[in-house]
Amino acid sequence: MKILLVGAHGTLGTAVAAELGARHDLVSAGRQSGDLRIDLTDSTSIRAALAQAGPLDAIVCAAGNVHFGALEDMTEDLFGLGLRDKLMGQVNLALLGRDALRDGGSITLTSGILTREPIRAGSSASMVNGAIEAWVRAAAIELPRGLRINAVSPGVLAESMPGYAPYFRGFEPVPAARAALGFSRSVEGRDTGKVYEVT
Amino acid sequence: MKILLVGAHGTLGTAVAAELGARHDLVSAGRQSGDLRIDLTDSTSIRAALAQAGPLDAIVCAAGNVHFGALEDMTEDLFGLGLRDKLMGQVNLALLGRDALRDGGSITLTSGILTREPIRAGSSASMVNGAIEAWVRAAAIELPRGLRINAVSPGVLAESMPGYAPYFRGFEPVPAARAALGFSRSVEGRDTGKVYEVT
Repeated sequence: MKILLVGAHGTLGTAVAAELGARHDLVSAGRQSGDLRIDLTDSTSIRAALAQAGPLDAIVCAAGNVHFGALEDMTEDLFGLGLRDKLMGQVNLALLGRDALRDGGSITLTSGILTREPIRAGSSASMVNGAIEAWVRAAAIELPRGLRINAVSPGVLAESMPGYAPYFRGFEPVPAARAALGFSRSVEGRDTGKVYEVT
Repeated sequence: MKILLVGAHGTLGTAVAAELGARHDLVSAGRQSGDLRIDLTDSTSIRAALAQAGPLDAIVCAAGNVHFGALEDMTEDLFGLGLRDKLMGQVNLALLGRDALRDGGSITLTSGILTREPIRAGSSASMVNGAIEAWVRAAAIELPRGLRINAVSPGVLAESMPGYAPYFRGFEPVPAARAALGFSRSVEGRDTGKVYEVT
């Protein structure tokens, strides 16, 4: 398969690249590195990268930023960052990517455990992840040509614990290589409208 | 209790007003009617209404718009309508309303069944409802002074079936008076971070 992987050089993306790259033809994309440049907040860059990547069998997104901050410090604008980047960036990638996909192709987005298990300072991440998961379930029933869409919802990554540990006390970290299996199930399986919780 | 009810004259809001108004002092608010005017997309109008409503024991929102449309016709801007109105309108009401609430007061927002059960043309509603539910779970653990926050997630309202029936075939309609019980549980109970699914 030919797969576009957005966020290929992040903590999660590196593991997804290792898992899928072993069997497939990967086109890597990122804000600052990769075969192609994509800024999820800029539809023009998404369109340009898709045009270059050519016909694809799968689009995988392991990218997306949100603002972490105490609820009392969160404002409409700070919530807006996550809505524009991790939420609408991934949604736009899916909407614009449809036409670049061959029949039966798949789209796989990333949400995260905070949909169900909140932590302090994580209310924007919870909002965005909840939106992605519900949207994926809804988009799945309207995609044409046998196109599929799923989300992977990993727990906190083991590799991210040095920075995030104080916020995730008691959470069992998930090695990125394990989280990558969710992407493999989505891309190489036949599911659609599913959220793979890897915790 | 003194309760601010936003969307008091909508299909759901009218039933919530009947349920809560029987036992409490209601201040009704809406875009075009009610004791106070609130446009959820305009923080200034939210601030002004809260300042007038004075110290409150509960804030209830039974309002919020999203765009319904086939996935193939949905654009970033059309998704933006729901994000600004039903999602961030309710979130802003909660954020700005905190300081108007007495200790132990509650905030109750409205999501809907499309979080879990998608329908065609409903991908924006699914997105927004999923975001609200996850955000409520997260906000609940960070609110100060014993403040509580919950969401009510009703199925399609029986009163709305004349317009919505073609999209909700096979769904069991919920009388608005039954959906209103979820608001009563939130306001008059002690839960926080909960989603009351009334289906």
